[in-house]
Amino acid sequence: MLIVMKPGASASDIERVLEVIETLGFRGHTLPGENRTAIGVTGNQGSIDPAHFENLSGVADAIRVTKPYKLISKDLRPEKSVIKVGTGTIGGDELAIIAGPCAIESREQLFATAEVISKSGAKFFRGGAYKPRTSPYAFQGLGEDGVKMLADVREQYGLNIVTEAMDERGVDAVEKYGDCIQIGARNMQNFSLLKYVGKTRKPVLLKRGLSATLDELLLAAEYIMAEGNYDVILCERGIRTFASHARNTMDLSVIPAVHRMTHLPIIVDPSHGTGHNYMVTPLARAGVAVGADGLIIEVHPNPEEALCDGAQALTPGQYSELVRQVTVIREAVAEEKTIAAA
Amino acid sequence: MLIVMKPGASASDIERVLEVIETLGFRGHTLPGENRTAIGVTGNQGSIDPAHFENLSGVADAIRVTKPYKLISKDLRPEKSVIKVGTGTIGGDELAIIAGPCAIESREQLFATAEVISKSGAKFFRGGAYKPRTSPYAFQGLGEDGVKMLADVREQYGLNIVTEAMDERGVDAVEKYGDCIQIGARNMQNFSLLKYVGKTRKPVLLKRGLSATLDELLLAAEYIMAEGNYDVILCERGIRTFASHARNTMDLSVIPAVHRMTHLPIIVDPSHGTGHNYMVTPLARAGVAVGADGLIIEVHPNPEEALCDGAQALTPGQYSELVRQVTVIREAVAEEKTIAAA
Amino acid sequence: MLIVMKPGASASDIERVLEVIETLGFRGHTLPGENRTAIGVTGNQGSIDPAHFENLSGVADAIRVTKPYKLISKDLRPEKSVIKVGTGTIGGDELAIIAGPCAIESREQLFATAEVISKSGAKFFRGGAYKPRTSPYAFQGLGEDGVKMLADVREQYGLNIVTEAMDERGVDAVEKYGDCIQIGARNMQNFSLLKYVGKTRKPVLLKRGLSATLDELLLAAEYIMAEGNYDVILCERGIRTFASHARNTMDLSVIPAVHRMTHLPIIVDPSHGTGHNYMVTPLARAGVAVGADGLIIEVHPNPEEALCDGAQALTPGQYSELVRQVTVIREAVAEEKTIAAA
Amino acid sequence: MLIVMKPGASASDIERVLEVIETLGFRGHTLPGENRTAIGVTGNQGSIDPAHFENLSGVADAIRVTKPYKLISKDLRPEKSVIKVGTGTIGGDELAIIAGPCAIESREQLFATAEVISKSGAKFFRGGAYKPRTSPYAFQGLGEDGVKMLADVREQYGLNIVTEAMDERGVDAVEKYGDCIQIGARNMQNFSLLKYVGKTRKPVLLKRGLSATLDELLLAAEYIMAEGNYDVILCERGIRTFASHARNTMDLSVIPAVHRMTHLPIIVDPSHGTGHNYMVTPLARAGVAVGADGLIIEVHPNPEEALCDGAQALTPGQYSELVRQVTVIREAVAEEKTIAAA
Repeated sequence: MLIVMKPGASASDIERVLEVIETLGFRGHTLPGENRTAIGVTGNQGSIDPAHFENLSGVADAIRVTKPYKLISKDLRPEKSVIKVGTGTIGGDELAIIAGPCAIESREQLFATAEVISKSGAKFFRGGAYKPRTSPYAFQGLGEDGVKMLADVREQYGLNIVTEAMDERGVDAVEKYGDCIQIGARNMQNFSLLKYVGKTRKPVLLKRGLSATLDELLLAAEYIMAEGNYDVILCERGIRTFASHARNTMDLSVIPAVHRMTHLPIIVDPSHGTGHNYMVTPLARAGVAVGADGLIIEVHPNPEEALCDGAQALTPGQYSELVRQVTVIREAVAEEKTIAAA
Repeated sequence: MLIVMKPGASASDIERVLEVIETLGFRGHTLPGENRTAIGVTGNQGSIDPAHFENLSGVADAIRVTKPYKLISKDLRPEKSVIKVGTGTIGGDELAIIAGPCAIESREQLFATAEVISKSGAKFFRGGAYKPRTSPYAFQGLGEDGVKMLADVREQYGLNIVTEAMDERGVDAVEKYGDCIQIGARNMQNFSLLKYVGKTRKPVLLKRGLSATLDELLLAAEYIMAEGNYDVILCERGIRTFASHARNTMDLSVIPAVHRMTHLPIIVDPSHGTGHNYMVTPLARAGVAVGADGLIIEVHPNPEEALCDGAQALTPGQYSELVRQVTVIREAVAEEKTIAAA
Repeated sequence: MLIVMKPGASASDIERVLEVIETLGFRGHTLPGENRTAIGVTGNQGSIDPAHFENLSGVADAIRVTKPYKLISKDLRPEKSVIKVGTGTIGGDELAIIAGPCAIESREQLFATAEVISKSGAKFFRGGAYKPRTSPYAFQGLGEDGVKMLADVREQYGLNIVTEAMDERGVDAVEKYGDCIQIGARNMQNFSLLKYVGKTRKPVLLKRGLSATLDELLLAAEYIMAEGNYDVILCERGIRTFASHARNTMDLSVIPAVHRMTHLPIIVDPSHGTGHNYMVTPLARAGVAVGADGLIIEVHPNPEEALCDGAQALTPGQYSELVRQVTVIREAVAEEKTIAAA
Repeated sequence: MLIVMKPGASASDIERVLEVIETLGFRGHTLPGENRTAIGVTGNQGSIDPAHFENLSGVADAIRVTKPYKLISKDLRPEKSVIKVGTGTIGGDELAIIAGPCAIESREQLFATAEVISKSGAKFFRGGAYKPRTSPYAFQGLGEDGVKMLADVREQYGLNIVTEAMDERGVDAVEKYGDCIQIGARNMQNFSLLKYVGKTRKPVLLKRGLSATLDELLLAAEYIMAEGNYDVILCERGIRTFASHARNTMDLSVIPAVHRMTHLPIIVDPSHGTGHNYMVTPLARAGVAVGADGLIIEVHPNPEEALCDGAQALTPGQYSELVRQVTVIREAVAEEKTIAAA
């Protein structure tokens, strides 16, 4: 914490600030400047609330210096985390591809899609049983019945199951039948739910909220980890901006930022991130090129009949072509790393 | 729904679109234009998913025309809703003021604040027992003990209690001890929680999410109402933008928009909406001037010692002055309405 | 400037930073902390570019402390500036109202509107002769002919003329025939134009850019003032956000922020700020209530026939009612100030 | 244009709308629906201003259907434009790399950088002589002297010169000495300047404004082309959002959207788009993977001493590695296209 005093701050204003710092159990360091005095605070373990200082007489600004997270940080764990999800891993050398329909509509549709995904070589299967829909009148998913169908998909195809839970009942079902619990963008700051999944022993796929800063995303992960579940995979799925040519704006610069600050893996979701079929493959390529650890992709045997988000789902043919393209890019990126490190 | 065909769309493309419309049980109306054909869809009761059309051959765009909500709409109920909250009302002629500390810290702090609020003439008291905090290491509130203290405040001062719930347990406690269940901005699209409060019989204060559009806010209210609880009060508390001089950007144009589209009342929260003590009173004045049905204001007997959001809390003296100012403005606005209508 | 070192920064990393600080002519102050060292920089007159430090080995962050502006600052001039515009003033006790059509379409339309404005008691008349239009195919304004018509309005009605210039030729015309040169939102960072108007001797109405931070707005004013023209009036006209119920999002919290940091007056533009007729009056009331020094309002004798932005223009009747309402609010706010100061 | 009537609109409301449509010279088509009537408008060549209808009695909404641009459109020119810039081309099969320092500081620095760029195989050299700086007290560039030095670089190294102009004098200088006139993000809607460069015969690199929608970017290009200069290259350089981990948020989904709607080439600027050295190479890879026609990259022989934007400039070594990496990705993308088309 750095406290910047106003140009006209009095000696007693400065004294008062130093007193408050001491009361909080920290040390204050006065730095007299040309025009104004600044006071550095040391001795704090975590972040200090600027509110303690902002309204004191003579204070111009209180600036945070220490970052407020611990468990996600590379300071704590310098090597990258490789998260085990069922029989696969996310965060290691191999690109993780999670694919499947937006919503589970029927056993038929689910198995038809799983057949395609399985042949593509992907190790992870997605499919929504509990669907967060903006309107209460939209299709809300098949619920626990859907989750059980996903378990049957795993049985038959050996695919590891990633699916969303929206509340405690859902978490219990996914923990029982699935391999990875997805927390959706709208629940990224549903702190009660984060604590609840933090107590499970299944890995968590945490999607970035529509207007979440990087700090907020990392602190949401920290909520889960603080309860003892360290297996968190982050996901960039587009943020909300003024731009309207895509449903959301994919913020790919968050990938190198996450890799710099934390040991956690991060994947990208170009289906929700763009909302348009024709953008999914180019943005998937971009996500792999920027260094993401994986992709999550919507595939539907017949997108125009999909009950949910059909416009963005790839056909099986488009999906196979996407896998071919990103595999080439991933190899190019990996090769670059080897050469660059040499 | 209006479907716009590409300039080069063939007759069979148009046929296929008309077929899909018919399959869905609606009627299609072809409008040949100078450069391109458009197809209007009628016969639908609610909104149609554009996904059914966007990927069909020859389709340039599918534009929604019907709005996807019912219960919140003035079409359904032209007169404004006046919501009963304990012994008071929100949405009627009187300006509703909800005041109190951000978080309940102790019995002492709570009653000291309630004493001030009570004398100011406000009818509603706020105080957080369950606190949604960005960091897991920040003070998380006193929980059910806090809610019980609020019930004691009502007992002693006759103030009606408005307090936030973050999950089902919290909703149960607030339903039991409080008068109005607040759903915070971060839970505005926690659809499971919305359905749960929709089943209670206490009024709900629904805060707009940080990046929620007006449609999304109204549909969140629709979620609650669709479960049978029609007592929903909306709240504008600032949205997330690039601007950094305030913690959030208060979007006051949403007030006339809400009043135009829905019968529900809407209040404003200039404390969270700005995050700065010196901005709270000016923005409270603006909120009342724009036509809001009430205010929710943070007051703390000693803001610089507050455990949460201290920087924005008003002192008792500042709060009393705010009440005096907004009362004058409210009278001016009411008088205007009378004259304008005459 | 405060430089925060990484936890593992070496003594020689710190030495190197201190060296660079010295090379730049400043002084460095080392503050060893629990986990990391911070280095304060003093002796600088203006802002230091963080770029000098961010890439040095061992540096985690370089945080600006000194604000980069001078002439707009209350440190330089504590009392508020009252700007003379023709025979009127902006920034003093009286609320300034600038009203008129978006674009000048014809002599007839112009004088019909001026008649109304003049009778309302407003002292300032607006009307666009040079129109910045998003499309090259939209009506671009009457140019210098329009500016001359405005001079005739002043002649006949004694109204002071505020009109936009988009380039040097336009500035010359407005300087010659008008009373105040408006720089539009899209030109707020057209630095060549800012310097050019800084050399004129007419007051400048500087509109905030659609995505301008407060700092950028103040520095744009600083550009004008640095050339010797101190008569700058700021204008909030809405910012660009994700919200779509209004054309822009009016950011009223910028008014108290501007009044806190600078001596310059600031007005609000609810016509462009909302883009909807029915929102203009409520937001005008809010702007006056929050403490703005004036309003700029679009009025058209027949809005539905307007060649530009007709949807938002008020009819003469609506405008007269607006003036009546904001006058009451202004008096209420002024009275409050008197009582509050007593 | 589609006009949607309110549920309670009367027959005479509908008549009035049809009349206005006719007055404007178009044809109206009434579509009675279940709950409300819609009216389609045909016969218009360009876009119609919704303002003509929004305030008419009984009108709920007026929705634009026809897009307001012509020259940039694929409807007009289906094949992609390959723009000649000096002796090179942008928009063809080869990836265009434009590299060089942010600002020209000295002859020495310029030639040292050009030496590196030239060896890397790039065909285009950048370097700012006229610098748009947020603060009037920041280094403003060497002006025409700088532009002349760039001409010397071309002379010696055969590199084609891309450099920014901020006003007419600057355009004249760049047209005389350079190969491509850059219009910066802050001038994207400086319509006078757009018209001026539209009259030159040098290609224009048009950077997207910080809060420009895709439509606004395309219409800015349309401004230039409407004056007769068809050689426009678009550039995505990051937009302004709430996210603060990077200086701007790169919006890579705009690349496939531009390629779908227009025949113009588009390049990306990961240096300004991120503002952080460590993000430039990953985002350059992503830009090439998503399908951009080129890159513009800041390179400085000694970034920590740079007078402008040093934090983001690459060292010569980093730059050479970037070129190697993106070349591999470009080949992978090109190969994919060939296979996909086969």
